[in-house]
Amino acid sequence: DYKQLDKIIVGVCGGDGIGPAITKQAQRVLEYLLKDEVASGKVEFKVIDGLTIERRAEEMKAIPDDVLEELKECHVILKGPTTTPRKGDEWPNVESANVAMRKALDLFANVRPVRIPEQGIDWTFYRENTEGGYAAGKEGVQVTEDLGIDFTIATKEGCDRIIRAAFEFAKANGKTRVTAVTKANIIKTTDGKFLDCFYRIAKEYPDIQADDWYIDIMTAKLIDENRRRGFQVVVLPNLYGDIITDEAAEFQGGVGTAGSANIGKRYAMFEAIHGSAPRMVKEGRDIYADPCSVIRAGAMLLSHIGYTKEADKLYKALDICTVTEKKLVITGRDTGATGEEFADYIMETIERI
Amino acid sequence: DYKQLDKIIVGVCGGDGIGPAITKQAQRVLEYLLKDEVASGKVEFKVIDGLTIERRAEEMKAIPDDVLEELKECHVILKGPTTTPRKGDEWPNVESANVAMRKALDLFANVRPVRIPEQGIDWTFYRENTEGGYAAGKEGVQVTEDLGIDFTIATKEGCDRIIRAAFEFAKANGKTRVTAVTKANIIKTTDGKFLDCFYRIAKEYPDIQADDWYIDIMTAKLIDENRRRGFQVVVLPNLYGDIITDEAAEFQGGVGTAGSANIGKRYAMFEAIHGSAPRMVKEGRDIYADPCSVIRAGAMLLSHIGYTKEADKLYKALDICTVTEKKLVITGRDTGATGEEFADYIMETIERI
Ligand SMILES: CC(C)[C@H](C(=O)O)[C@@H](O)C(=O)O
Ligand SMILES: CC(C)[C@H](C(=O)O)[C@@H](O)C(=O)O
Repeated sequence: DYKQLDKIIVGVCGGDGIGPAITKQAQRVLEYLLKDEVASGKVEFKVIDGLTIERRAEEMKAIPDDVLEELKECHVILKGPTTTPRKGDEWPNVESANVAMRKALDLFANVRPVRIPEQGIDWTFYRENTEGGYAAGKEGVQVTEDLGIDFTIATKEGCDRIIRAAFEFAKANGKTRVTAVTKANIIKTTDGKFLDCFYRIAKEYPDIQADDWYIDIMTAKLIDENRRRGFQVVVLPNLYGDIITDEAAEFQGGVGTAGSANIGKRYAMFEAIHGSAPRMVKEGRDIYADPCSVIRAGAMLLSHIGYTKEADKLYKALDICTVTEKKLVITGRDTGATGEEFADYIMETIERI
Repeated sequence: DYKQLDKIIVGVCGGDGIGPAITKQAQRVLEYLLKDEVASGKVEFKVIDGLTIERRAEEMKAIPDDVLEELKECHVILKGPTTTPRKGDEWPNVESANVAMRKALDLFANVRPVRIPEQGIDWTFYRENTEGGYAAGKEGVQVTEDLGIDFTIATKEGCDRIIRAAFEFAKANGKTRVTAVTKANIIKTTDGKFLDCFYRIAKEYPDIQADDWYIDIMTAKLIDENRRRGFQVVVLPNLYGDIITDEAAEFQGGVGTAGSANIGKRYAMFEAIHGSAPRMVKEGRDIYADPCSVIRAGAMLLSHIGYTKEADKLYKALDICTVTEKKLVITGRDTGATGEEFADYIMETIERI
């Protein structure tokens, strides 16, 4: 329970690209909602700005040591997007900072809600966040110039803890069904293990219906308006979680509208699920970047640390601003609004509800 | 050129579950369309019926030796679905027969078209069909009871040939864009290789625009009605191809409506992309199984071996029966029609167009 702490330290790690610009706006909104706590010293916001692609490339490290130290001093973290280098990029081959942080802080549960009330959609995805195809970091094996191998791993402990988290969430929230998604007919050892663990743990929750689908057919089922309503809690290995949650977010208005919670035993990190949009920065348009997704991540953070009332206000304001009134929208391309103006608008809206 | 052959041997391999019932109907339709060729001996249909789950389980082989021999005597194959055992199943852990056949006959290109003319959608997916996460068959490594590892591989030759096939198809069909889909930011060695090969080969086709997206965001883009129209030819590693083509087929009416061509240098195999529906067989309802998808695979087969006129007739009849008139639909659950009645209806329709 965070409220028991003398002081809750909230790290604000902007990342790079449009990250610093949008997390700054999210921080403004959170500080506004928690102004009494900030004034009394109960909550402290700590800006961590060393997680840039430039420093990561220079040091050839996914997370520079001093940044990792700073992160570990926080209780919860609000994170902006970080540029992920890839082969053929202008950047050297360092591991994704997202992935490195999930592993370094052991944030094993990536929780991504997608809600479209008017369509009866209320999904919560529990994506395993430390194993699968992501475990090896940048280390595949280039056997010869002509043959490359990558690995995917699954441990019993790793599978168990994410599956149990999904069932516990279902139980605590009155959900009646948990669905696993794998490709266990082909990726037999690791996905097979995931599925074994799933049905073993399911037995401990006799009141909750457990079923599973393959990832290929699952992408189709999410589109089928008659069947998709039936999904409630979905638990998936890392890569399938990555894929399905982007698809699912699209129904809600795109990855720009979704936030993501990365939760471990000790730390928790909240982030936008979109990228760092380096092009916008190059063109000097980062002040127009839409902070909506990272503000939504901020709302998840508030509710995680126990400020439920403030979180609810923020969710409501986000809904009013982005769905009902839709006055200022995505990236300001349409309206010319800046991220700062959007944050102002959110705060004004909170004021009047 | 198949028409140069003295005799074209078309293998009809029913598989198991509803497979034999539906491929039988597809064969009836093809024999009807090629009745003169069958009469003259130019085309011979050869039923291959040993690819059942029972035999595969008994012999612990994905494809029994005699079946593989028979398959290799054919020029092209029409294949029904085969049950894929998985961990925890009633069946032992034998490799998927689909996957084994793709590898045994070196059918490296899995070509899956999705067309929705009224929405401006005309996509052709080129899925790599022999490597990636599928290459290892059932062989992962169970390091300890608690740790499992699976592999994914990519070879330069394997990437090059599917990518080249996609560009050649684009060129021959006046397409202006080829898109690669990977997760090269994470699965760096194999997907990185795929992407390297993609941009290297793209240089040989300066008139065709080449771009790439990550698989997660691609599943979202396919849903976005403004952006999806822009895709034309899409080339993907095996697993991503598996996932994306099921999603794409859903827009067209579901996996039940899509056919799939598996093409190699020497052999070609055409199949439905849905499963074997063992439940229907258990309940004695396999005569009601919808043969639409495997008949569509038959149309692809006809056009592959050069009987374009017959193929076009069949495509047209399928459109009339399933879209325009919609008299008899999926699995007969709605109308009580059997697969045989559906095939009759297709043939009557061909008669009158
Ligand atoms: C940027 C990328 C490394 C990341 C992932 O693949 O996990 C992103 O897609 C996400 O879903 O958070
Ligand atoms: C049945 C299964 C092994 C197969 C695959 O994964 O390739 C199927 O989904 C397909 O797309 O043909």
